[in-house]
Amino acid sequence: MDEVSVLAPATVSNVACGFDCLGFALVQPYDEITVRRIDERAVHIIHRDDYGLPTDPERNVAGVALLAMMNSADLDFGFEIETTKHIKPGSGIGSSAANSCGAVVAANRILGDRFSDSELVEFALQGEELASGSKHADNVAPCIFGGVTLVRSMERLDIVELDFPPLYATVVHPQIEVRTVEARAILPKDVPLDLAVRQWANLGAFVSALAKGDYALIGRAMEDLIVEPVRKSLIPEFNRLRSASLSAGALGGGISGSGPSVFMLSQSAESASKVASAMQDVYSQTDLEFKIYTSEINSRGVVVV
Amino acid sequence: MDEVSVLAPATVSNVACGFDCLGFALVQPYDEITVRRIDERAVHIIHRDDYGLPTDPERNVAGVALLAMMNSADLDFGFEIETTKHIKPGSGIGSSAANSCGAVVAANRILGDRFSDSELVEFALQGEELASGSKHADNVAPCIFGGVTLVRSMERLDIVELDFPPLYATVVHPQIEVRTVEARAILPKDVPLDLAVRQWANLGAFVSALAKGDYALIGRAMEDLIVEPVRKSLIPEFNRLRSASLSAGALGGGISGSGPSVFMLSQSAESASKVASAMQDVYSQTDLEFKIYTSEINSRGVVVV
Repeated sequence: MDEVSVLAPATVSNVACGFDCLGFALVQPYDEITVRRIDERAVHIIHRDDYGLPTDPERNVAGVALLAMMNSADLDFGFEIETTKHIKPGSGIGSSAANSCGAVVAANRILGDRFSDSELVEFALQGEELASGSKHADNVAPCIFGGVTLVRSMERLDIVELDFPPLYATVVHPQIEVRTVEARAILPKDVPLDLAVRQWANLGAFVSALAKGDYALIGRAMEDLIVEPVRKSLIPEFNRLRSASLSAGALGGGISGSGPSVFMLSQSAESASKVASAMQDVYSQTDLEFKIYTSEINSRGVVVV
Repeated sequence: MDEVSVLAPATVSNVACGFDCLGFALVQPYDEITVRRIDERAVHIIHRDDYGLPTDPERNVAGVALLAMMNSADLDFGFEIETTKHIKPGSGIGSSAANSCGAVVAANRILGDRFSDSELVEFALQGEELASGSKHADNVAPCIFGGVTLVRSMERLDIVELDFPPLYATVVHPQIEVRTVEARAILPKDVPLDLAVRQWANLGAFVSALAKGDYALIGRAMEDLIVEPVRKSLIPEFNRLRSASLSAGALGGGISGSGPSVFMLSQSAESASKVASAMQDVYSQTDLEFKIYTSEINSRGVVVV
């Protein structure tokens, strides 16, 4: 096979109490990515969108991911990547992860699925490092594995695929830019031990609630006492979005990634649609442009088409 | 019913990555507690052991727990508590929790099980506050509910009963005293955010591993990066105990409660026995007196006999 096309989905990371380790994949939006084998030992990049992302493979998240893969596999050929992005860069729903994950999954298929999912995560992490200055797998892990994932360890990569019941996400993306680097800079370096205990108790409860399908507990456990209080100032109307969403039936939610997108989880597609309407009501009263997506949690991750 | 006898088991709290929220119950050791209804509106305490614990109900953990229950139920009668303790006070395996939990479960049976398990935890917490100066439910919750419990919230008590596979504990109790108050005093007030993230990722992974019966992940996730590094100096030969236990087949472990007991978890009773031998080898080379217990995780908690 010399050409493979994939759909690479958006992902929500951090997920309230799961800062820097928890993430899940959406069904939409997604990027369309085609990878072709080329004889030259190089990576060529073609954009079919207007985002103006770099075409120099050393400065492109998918480029560095594929270069890492080529080095690891010691290939004497290369790849062309053609991308039609639908996930806006800087939206906080894993735009860079979709690029790099889509590219490595497609290239891996061309290589006869030589690499494991965990190895693909390692390659895609090169892209995350380029995009944000640090290696965080909480978007690339759900993008590649699908579903809800927990990155237990980055030192020696250890990704846990969590069991979860049917869950529907509503994501609103106000069209402002929050840079990951800046959203990191405002975080505290140290946190009070008692708050940290409450945060990990919530995460433990959230994981148990997912496994048992205990929706009420999923809601109670989606509490972020450490990061959200600091970052919510970056998100227009965050408190109103949250309260309107909860009133509309959302279980809970928080900031997606480092923002500006905000996500809410619901028990049913119907509830997720009501949450979308509630979010729309809030932002329609402002001058903000925004997009809203509703999506079941995507258990497949990147899909070859 | 005017007299009820119970066995109130020892419990392991903190459980590596689950500081201040996670705990599980042992089958042994346990305290034998009999509660009798008396006409007087008072609590009388009788000790059938040599530990010299207070008999003044206001200064006795079971006493304050029953007084709280009597107030809540607005009783016009009282109770006599007769206790034969086998769990040494100050051992770090929930000695005070066994006392107070045993008393409230027995008294509740006399009252026709008027109170829920969560309400019993609230009464028993009065005893924990008396014993340690602060209300922590990570011993009383597993003592009353049995199994492995996670205290998600103390503000509004929220106890999660975790699913878990067959697990066997080995606990060694070196006969030195570590006071809970002092073990708390050496804890840092603040922790680096990056370490806190690793701790909550471990706890999330541990909860998932318990639910799935993934023993290897149970082992990898039992890592305490925050409390154990500080407290292990209080435990004689802690590093040797751990490495000998892991070599003997333990999945992992840590300090039980605030010490001095150390626990290890194993996949089988046979493995737990080998771990016991390994612990014995370590402490036999010292002048320490010690006791070792092996026990399956007790899914029942306090049992009426």
